[in-house]
Amino acid sequence: MSLNIVFPGATRQLADFVVATNYSDLPQATLDAGRRSLVNFLGVAVGGAHHEEVESALKALHRLGAGGNVPLLGRPDRIDAVNAALINGTSSAVLDFDSTQMKRTNIHPSGPVLPAILAFAHGRAISGPDFIAAFILGVEVACRIANGVFGEHNPGWHVTGVTGGIGAAAAVSKLLGLDAEKTVAAMAIAANQASGLREMYGTACKALTPGRAARDGLLSAMLAAEGVSAPDRPIEGRKGLAMVFTGHEAPRSLTKELGDRYEIELNIFKPYPCAIVTHAVIDGVSRLCAGEEIDPADIAEIQLEVAPIAAELAGHAAPQTALQSKFSLTHAAAIAATHRVARVEHFSDEALHDAGYAALRTSVGVQSRKGLKKNEAHVLIRTNDAKTHELHVEHALGSLERPMSDDDIAEKFLGLVEPVLGGERAHALLGRAIELHMSTDAGSLADYPG
Amino acid sequence: MSLNIVFPGATRQLADFVVATNYSDLPQATLDAGRRSLVNFLGVAVGGAHHEEVESALKALHRLGAGGNVPLLGRPDRIDAVNAALINGTSSAVLDFDSTQMKRTNIHPSGPVLPAILAFAHGRAISGPDFIAAFILGVEVACRIANGVFGEHNPGWHVTGVTGGIGAAAAVSKLLGLDAEKTVAAMAIAANQASGLREMYGTACKALTPGRAARDGLLSAMLAAEGVSAPDRPIEGRKGLAMVFTGHEAPRSLTKELGDRYEIELNIFKPYPCAIVTHAVIDGVSRLCAGEEIDPADIAEIQLEVAPIAAELAGHAAPQTALQSKFSLTHAAAIAATHRVARVEHFSDEALHDAGYAALRTSVGVQSRKGLKKNEAHVLIRTNDAKTHELHVEHALGSLERPMSDDDIAEKFLGLVEPVLGGERAHALLGRAIELHMSTDAGSLADYPG
Repeated sequence: MSLNIVFPGATRQLADFVVATNYSDLPQATLDAGRRSLVNFLGVAVGGAHHEEVESALKALHRLGAGGNVPLLGRPDRIDAVNAALINGTSSAVLDFDSTQMKRTNIHPSGPVLPAILAFAHGRAISGPDFIAAFILGVEVACRIANGVFGEHNPGWHVTGVTGGIGAAAAVSKLLGLDAEKTVAAMAIAANQASGLREMYGTACKALTPGRAARDGLLSAMLAAEGVSAPDRPIEGRKGLAMVFTGHEAPRSLTKELGDRYEIELNIFKPYPCAIVTHAVIDGVSRLCAGEEIDPADIAEIQLEVAPIAAELAGHAAPQTALQSKFSLTHAAAIAATHRVARVEHFSDEALHDAGYAALRTSVGVQSRKGLKKNEAHVLIRTNDAKTHELHVEHALGSLERPMSDDDIAEKFLGLVEPVLGGERAHALLGRAIELHMSTDAGSLADYPG
Repeated sequence: MSLNIVFPGATRQLADFVVATNYSDLPQATLDAGRRSLVNFLGVAVGGAHHEEVESALKALHRLGAGGNVPLLGRPDRIDAVNAALINGTSSAVLDFDSTQMKRTNIHPSGPVLPAILAFAHGRAISGPDFIAAFILGVEVACRIANGVFGEHNPGWHVTGVTGGIGAAAAVSKLLGLDAEKTVAAMAIAANQASGLREMYGTACKALTPGRAARDGLLSAMLAAEGVSAPDRPIEGRKGLAMVFTGHEAPRSLTKELGDRYEIELNIFKPYPCAIVTHAVIDGVSRLCAGEEIDPADIAEIQLEVAPIAAELAGHAAPQTALQSKFSLTHAAAIAATHRVARVEHFSDEALHDAGYAALRTSVGVQSRKGLKKNEAHVLIRTNDAKTHELHVEHALGSLERPMSDDDIAEKFLGLVEPVLGGERAHALLGRAIELHMSTDAGSLADYPG
C-alpha cells in the first residue's frame, strides 16, 4: 500500500539532520566526547586484533577468496573495505571492553560506526573534521533509534547489531555526500539487514555482531549511492523496524532536540574488560576489600544485590568458558576480591580454571533487586570471623556520573596497544587520534600494522 | 543463564538430520523436485543477471575493493565467494520470478541456499549428488523454520531473509562435512544475522535480501568450521529466533516427520514474473477474456475478490515504479486483460507508463475476502454493453494443485536464459542442470559467463 507522505517521517528527519550538520556545527563538549570514543575504540580494536576469533574470521574469509588492499587495525594483513569493516568491528568487541551508551538501552555505537568510516576512508583522503563529524552523526542515529525504539521494548535484541548498522550507513552517507533521500535509502537498506540476538551472549559469535553491522552499514550507503531504492519510512513505517522488531510504533522522541544535544556525550568507557553490568560489583568488592583489608582466604560469603538487568545479562553463575566469565557476577566478585581490580588476563581460560577463583565464585550469592540502577550495587562480605562488611556503590567507576578521565582512557589505550604496536608506535597512534581534527587523511589511522 | 540441556533441542535435531542424510537416502520424487527448483533458479538468476540492481550492487562492491575469482551466473565478471553468493542470490530475485514455498508462510528457499553452495563449490570439486543433497537439506532447514516459527506469527518479516540464511548455513555445513555440533553453530551464526522487513517490498533493496542470506549462510558455515562458538539453541532458546522474532516458542512441529517428507516437494514455480499472490488474478482475467473473447477496450470494470494476504502484499493500486507494478493486483489485471498472459516486459517502466494499462488499472476494484486462499480469486468483468462475465479460480496456474510441468519449467528457463547466453549455451546449461547427479564438479554450473 503506498502511503501519501504529507510530513517527513522520523527517518527523513534524521537524514536531513545528517546532511545539514558539519564539523563546525558541533560543540566542543561533543567533539571532546567524540575524541574519547575514538581513542577508546582504537585501543580496544588494536588490543583485540590478534584474538583467536579475529584469526578465525579472517581465515574463514580467506578460505572464501576475499582479498584487497585495505589495512586492518593492529594487524599486518589487508582485505577489501567491506571485510575490513567486519574485521575491525569484531576486533573492537572481542575484549568486551568497548564504550557503551546506556541511556535507555545498552548499545556500543563506536563498534559499528567507526570501522565503517575507517574502511571507507582508506585511500579517499577524508579530512579529520569530516571523519569526526560523520562518526558523531552516525553515533547519533544509532543511539537515537536504539533508545527510542528499544528503550522500553526489547524481547531479546542485541541492540548494537540492530541499530548500529543504520548509524554506520548514515555516517558513510555523510562522507559520500549523499542527499537526504539517498541517506534515507542507505539507512533503509541497513535496517533491512538489522539483526542480532541476545541468545548469542556468552559465545564467540557475539563479537562478530558490531563487525557485521559495520560491514552492512558501509555497503548499504554505497548501494544507496549507486541508486538502489528503498522505502521512505524504514524505521517508522507500518512494517518498518519499530513495529516489526518491537510491536510498537516509533516514538516521537526519536527526533526530539536534534542538534540541541548529542548522544555521543553519553557514551561511557569501561575500566574493566567484561560486561558493563558487572562494573558496580567489581568496583564495590574491590573497594570494600581494599578499605577493610579483607584477605580473599578469609571470605565466607559475598552477597550482591544488583539491578535485575545485571542479574540477567551477567547471570553465568558457574561460567563454562572464558567468554562466559565476562558475563558472570560471581566471577567478577571473585576476581575483585582477589586483585581489587579486573584486567584482561582475569577472563582467560587459565583464570576460569583457577581453583581459588572457582572456590570464591561458589561463595557468591546474587540477588536481583528492582529499583537498583545498572551501575549500582550493594555488596556484603561476611568473613570467617563472622564479621560483615558492607558497601553501597551508587555509581560504578566508568559510569556517566564517575567517568574515566582523558588520562585514564589514554592509559587504558596504551595498556592495550603497546603489546601489539610497541611503545613508540602506540604513542604515535594515540597522538594522531587526539589530533585527528588537524589531519588531511583520517584513513591513515589504520596505517599502523601490528 | 546456562541451561542444563537434557534432550537435544530443535536446532540440534535439524543438524543431526543434515549430518546423517545423504543423496542415496533421498526419494526419487524429492530429487525430481530438487531438479525442478535448480533449473528454475538457474533460469531466473541468469535471466536477471544484467538487471540494473545487480549492476548497482556490483559497482558498490567494486568501489569498496572487492575482487576474486568466483564466476557469477550469467555475467562475464568474477568476485570472491562471499560476494558471488550475494550477487547470484540478488540476480535470482530481481525478476520476482523464483520458486516459492507457500505451505504456511511465503518463502523463496532456493535464492539463499543455491548461491551459497554454488559459490562454495567453485574450485572444490563437489560432486553433483553431494551438491543436490546439500541443496535439498538446506531448503528443508529454511522451510521448516519458516513454516514452524513464522507460519502463524509474522508481524512483518521477509521470511526468506530470516530463515534462508540458516538453511544456507546448514547446506554449506553439509558440504564442509561439519559434525552436528558445528552445524548447529553455523545455523546459530546465521540466525544472529537473520533479517529482512516487508517494509522493503516494492523497492529495489528487497531483491538483495536472498543474496544477503546466501552470503551470510556461506560465511556462517565457514566461521563455524574455523571454530567460532555459538549457542546450542539459536532457534528455540529463551532469547533465540522464535521468541525474539515472534514472541512465541518454537513449535514441536519444527522437527516432525523429519525425513518422512521433504519440504522441497512443496516448492512451486511461477508462470508470471510478479508477486505470486497476483497469479490467480492473472490466470482468471486471462482465461475469462480469452474464453469470452473480451476486448480490453470493451471493459467497463473488473472486480476482483482475493485473499486478504494477496490484497496486502500486492496492494499497490496505483504503482509508481516498475517494481511496484509487480506487487499490484490492478496492474496484473490490466496486463492479463490486454495480453491474456504476463511476461517480464509487462512490468517495465514503459509498461508502467502505458496509457492503456493505466486506464485499465483505474477500472479495477479489489475486495479482500476472508476464506479465500492465496492462489484463489474471483473475477468479475463488466463490459460496456452492461454484460457481466465471471470466473472463479480455485487454484492459480503454478500452484501446487496446478503445477508447471517439467517442460513448462524448461521453456521458462530457455525464455530467460537464451537472451543472455544464446541458444546453444542455454541448452547446454539446461542439460547440465538436469544431469547434475552425474557431474563430478557441480561448481561448473557457474561456468557459463554471459
